Amino acid sequence: MSKKTIICSDELDVLEKQQRVNLINSLGGFKSVALVGTADSNGNTNAAIFSSFFHIGANPPLIGMIFRPSPPERDTMRNIIETGFYTINHINESIYKQAHQTSARYDADVSEFDATGLTPEYKNNFFAPFVAESNVQLGIEYKDKIEIAINNTTIIIGEIIQIHIPEDCLLEDGFVNLEKANTITTSGLDSYHKTTQLDRLSYAKPNKEVTSIIQN
Amino acid sequence: MSKKTIICSDELDVLEKQQRVNLINSLGGFKSVALVGTADSNGNTNAAIFSSFFHIGANPPLIGMIFRPSPPERDTMRNIIETGFYTINHINESIYKQAHQTSARYDADVSEFDATGLTPEYKNNFFAPFVAESNVQLGIEYKDKIEIAINNTTIIIGEIIQIHIPEDCLLEDGFVNLEKANTITTSGLDSYHKTTQLDRLSYAKPNKEVTSIIQN
Repeated sequence: MSKKTIICSDELDVLEKQQRVNLINSLGGFKSVALVGTADSNGNTNAAIFSSFFHIGANPPLIGMIFRPSPPERDTMRNIIETGFYTINHINESIYKQAHQTSARYDADVSEFDATGLTPEYKNNFFAPFVAESNVQLGIEYKDKIEIAINNTTIIIGEIIQIHIPEDCLLEDGFVNLEKANTITTSGLDSYHKTTQLDRLSYAKPNKEVTSIIQN
Repeated sequence: MSKKTIICSDELDVLEKQQRVNLINSLGGFKSVALVGTADSNGNTNAAIFSSFFHIGANPPLIGMIFRPSPPERDTMRNIIETGFYTINHINESIYKQAHQTSARYDADVSEFDATGLTPEYKNNFFAPFVAESNVQLGIEYKDKIEIAINNTTIIIGEIIQIHIPEDCLLEDGFVNLEKANTITTSGLDSYHKTTQLDRLSYAKPNKEVTSIIQN
């Protein structure tokens, strides 16, 4: 590794806006990235890419996401709150350019599904559209909304009530092989990455070396 | 892709506990994973692995993380609230086994730095210890705490006030090349992955195809 650069608050404050946004968005590390599918109460569909998901708990199975105050994200949030349901669809190597394209500021009456060539998929009596091209699809029920006053963002919390995954990606112990499902990851605002597994490690205990638990 | 399996709330409810935990932790996709370094007011150090980070905003530069109600995580949270400062240190291929080992339930008077062979690093007048072996190190100031009543977890929000990164990983536009910094990602509870960049894509606009913005 090369010598380290130090950037403190004073230097951050004087960065050009786009540099600052790129930098701060990079620092969180690799992030999950997925398409959120919604419909309004008239059935007009919306698809939008997000990379602000986080695991809240397994029982009940809760997932959180952050919404910025800007208008395109607010369309998705309004649909979620109005209808109570949304889908989270993992992005794979075949659709990441279309997924990125959903972040363009389309007019509210344009469906990002139509504009980007992604296919809305209705199934299993779920209200909101899944993305047909996605291999890992989650049906989510809206549960709670938390305002973050410090910067006017909103956390939406939902419960996973339907899981659609390729059957050969689900291991016996419940682990999902996301690489086999072609799920990708993101960094910064605009960089997409595939992954290579290093290992799965055993449950850690004091004074006991962790070992590989991959079963071939 | 193989045929999809569907798992609904009813099936989730009857899964064995560890299966359920593995499954739900997998569904969020690839996550950022890092070591949080803290010290208590007597200077006793603590290092703990977390994969629940999320970007909240760039101005001010805010990062969130979730704390479960279980005791080991509460040591880190208590130190953060008591002292006001913590570090977030990206994990690379050389230290991921030691990082995983920090999740063992050591007694409160044992420093995970000592137990796992990681090195606490104090620099630039920052109160909390960085992890010397980490290539991307962030100094964070505690800002806010939000309780999630639905499952008794807590969100801690902090502001990034110091950034230490290898100088050749910082691009002119502010983007950080995390692959060059050897930062890795995680899935589920115990799986670690390195990444390969697919592309960086241009800012999306309606009716305009996205293009690569990688500069060689």
